Amino acid sequence: MANMNHDNVRAIEWDGKRLRLLDQRILPQRKEYIECRNSKQVADAISDMVVRGAPAIGIAAAYGALLAARQSSAHGEQWLTDELTYLQNARPTAVNLKWAVEKMRDILESDQGRDLDLLERVAGKIFSDDIDANRMMGDLGAQLIGNPCAVLTHCNAGSLATGGYGTALGVVRSAFVAGKITQVYADETRPWLQGARLTAWELRQDHIPVKLIADGAAAHLFKQGEVKWLIVGSDRIAANGDVANKIGTYTVAVAARYHGVKVMVVAPTSTIDLRTSSGDDIPIETRSEKEVTDFAGNSIASPDVGAWNPVFDVTPAELVDFIVTEKGVVASPDEKKIRTVMQS
Amino acid sequence: MANMNHDNVRAIEWDGKRLRLLDQRILPQRKEYIECRNSKQVADAISDMVVRGAPAIGIAAAYGALLAARQSSAHGEQWLTDELTYLQNARPTAVNLKWAVEKMRDILESDQGRDLDLLERVAGKIFSDDIDANRMMGDLGAQLIGNPCAVLTHCNAGSLATGGYGTALGVVRSAFVAGKITQVYADETRPWLQGARLTAWELRQDHIPVKLIADGAAAHLFKQGEVKWLIVGSDRIAANGDVANKIGTYTVAVAARYHGVKVMVVAPTSTIDLRTSSGDDIPIETRSEKEVTDFAGNSIASPDVGAWNPVFDVTPAELVDFIVTEKGVVASPDEKKIRTVMQS
Repeated sequence: MANMNHDNVRAIEWDGKRLRLLDQRILPQRKEYIECRNSKQVADAISDMVVRGAPAIGIAAAYGALLAARQSSAHGEQWLTDELTYLQNARPTAVNLKWAVEKMRDILESDQGRDLDLLERVAGKIFSDDIDANRMMGDLGAQLIGNPCAVLTHCNAGSLATGGYGTALGVVRSAFVAGKITQVYADETRPWLQGARLTAWELRQDHIPVKLIADGAAAHLFKQGEVKWLIVGSDRIAANGDVANKIGTYTVAVAARYHGVKVMVVAPTSTIDLRTSSGDDIPIETRSEKEVTDFAGNSIASPDVGAWNPVFDVTPAELVDFIVTEKGVVASPDEKKIRTVMQS
Repeated sequence: MANMNHDNVRAIEWDGKRLRLLDQRILPQRKEYIECRNSKQVADAISDMVVRGAPAIGIAAAYGALLAARQSSAHGEQWLTDELTYLQNARPTAVNLKWAVEKMRDILESDQGRDLDLLERVAGKIFSDDIDANRMMGDLGAQLIGNPCAVLTHCNAGSLATGGYGTALGVVRSAFVAGKITQVYADETRPWLQGARLTAWELRQDHIPVKLIADGAAAHLFKQGEVKWLIVGSDRIAANGDVANKIGTYTVAVAARYHGVKVMVVAPTSTIDLRTSSGDDIPIETRSEKEVTDFAGNSIASPDVGAWNPVFDVTPAELVDFIVTEKGVVASPDEKKIRTVMQS
C-alpha cells in the first residue's frame, strides 16, 4: 500500500484497487476509513465531506476518474463522460476538483487514452506532486516569518486537506521546526468545526502547541499583539488574486488587516484558476441550514428557525499580503504577478 | 405577581418573596424557571448564566441585595457586607451588576437603610426603569434607520437580557413595527450560542423574520449589501465610548466598518461607566475552556486540546457610529459627548 504522507495523518490511501478515505465527518472521536470502489462512491464521498480540502478533493477525484476509466469498458463512452461530469460537479467551489478531473480527461481523450497504467501513474503523480508542493510551500512560507511569534489559522489546511503535510499547516510545520512559531491558535471554524475537530487534532499529533478560539474571538486575539500572522489555505484563487476559502476567512482577514497582522495564503498552483477573473465569478457553495441550526443531530435553535449557510467566502486580493505557491511567493497579489508565477 | 415585561418573554419575575429566573442555559429546548430565595442563590445564578445580559444581571442583583437585607437581621452587618460583595463579584465585566448593588447599598447605608419596603420599591424601580429605558431606546434607535433594510445582531440583547423589550432587540422590535426592517440576521454567537438559542427564539415569538449565520459569515453577509446596520447591546461602555460586549462583537464591528455597515450600540446609561476611562481598563472575563472544546457535555475536539475563551471583547469608539441610550443618541462617541449625555 502506498503511503505517500510524510506525517502522522493519512487522509487518502490508494492500494491499486480501492481508494481509502479517512472519514473526516467523525474525527477526532473515531478514526475510520471509507472504501471507494467506483467513481460514484468517490463523488459522493466528496459531496458528503468524507474527504474535504481542495487539494485532497483533487487527488481523490483523480483516482475516481481512474476507477471510472477502468470500469468504462463494461459501460461505454457516454457512461464514462457522465461519470466524469458527476465527479467534477461533486462540489462547486474548490477548483482543484475540476483541475484534476480535466487532467485525467485529457489523457483519456489522447491517443494513449486506454492506457490504464498510464492513468494510474498520472493520478499517483497528482498525489505525490501535491505532497512535494506542500513541502516546498512549507519552506517558502516559513522563510517569510521573521521573529518567533504566534499565528492564527482558520479551517483545516493540513495533511487532512491535502496529499500530506498540508498547505497552511505545512508552513506551520516547517516554521515550528525552524523555531519561528511559539503558539498556534486555531479558529474552531463553524459550522463544520474543521478547526476544533481536524486542525487541533492534527497539530497535536505532531506535538505543535495549539489552542482553540471561537471564530468571533479573532479580533480580540489580534489586539493582544502575540499573533503576527494569519495563515490559511484556499479553495480557489482568481486571476486577480482574490482568494476563496472556508467561510470566516474573509471576516478574520479584515480583522487581521485592521490590526497589522499579515495574511499569508498557502496554495499550490492547481488552486489558481486563471479562467476565473475575480472573486465575484467564484461559485460559492451553500450547504444545509442544519449545519448551523443543529449540532450532532440535535437542534440547537428552535425548530422553526432557518439559517443562511454559505460555506466559502472571498477575501479580496487587497487584504492578502502573500500568496505562497510551490512555484514561488507572490507579495501583494495582482493579476500580473499571478500570471507570472503561473508561467514560471 | 408582577409582570413587568411587555412582550412574550419574561427572563425575571419577582413575587414579593422569591426571584424566579428563566434558565437560559437550557433554552430553547426547555422553558424552566429557577427560584432564588437568598442572595447567594442569585449570585450563583448570575455566575452560572442562568440569567445573563448586563441589564438583566443588574435587576437580578438588586433583588439579590434585597433578599440579603431581609435576611441580615439574623446574620449581622458583616454577613450583609460579605453577601453584597459576593453578589457584586459574580461576574466581572457587566457594570450594571456593580451599579445595581451599589444603588441598593447606598439605601442600606442611608438613614432609611432598614426600610425593607423602600428597598423593595428601589429594586422594582430598577426593574421598571429598565423596561422604560428599552422602550425609549427602541424609538430612538428605530428613528436612525432610514430605508427598510436587513440588520445583523450579535449575541442576545433582547427581553431575555433585560427587564423586558430589549436593548438592541428593542430597536429591532420598534424598527420592525415601523416597517424599517426586512430581515434580521443573528450571529449564532459561539461559544455559548446566545444568538442561535436565545435571539432566534425570542424574535420568532414576535414573528420577526430571523435567520442564523455562523459568526464567521458576517463579512460575506455584509458583502451582499442587504444589511445596512449592525445593532448590538453592551456590558460596559467606558468614558471614552469604547464598548465591551459579547466576544465576537469587535470582530464583526471591524467587518461592518470595512463594508460601510453602520454600527449601533444600544445600552441604558446604567451600562456607561465614567470611572472606567477606556476599554483597556475593562476587566474581560475568561470562562471555562470547555465552553469551546465541548458541546452539550460531549467533547468536540481531542481531549488534550485546550482553548482560550475570553467571553467579552472591546470595540473601540472609533468603530461605533451611534450609542443609543434612554437619555439620547450619541453619534461618533467620545468622552465629551458621553459625559454630556450622562448629565442630561
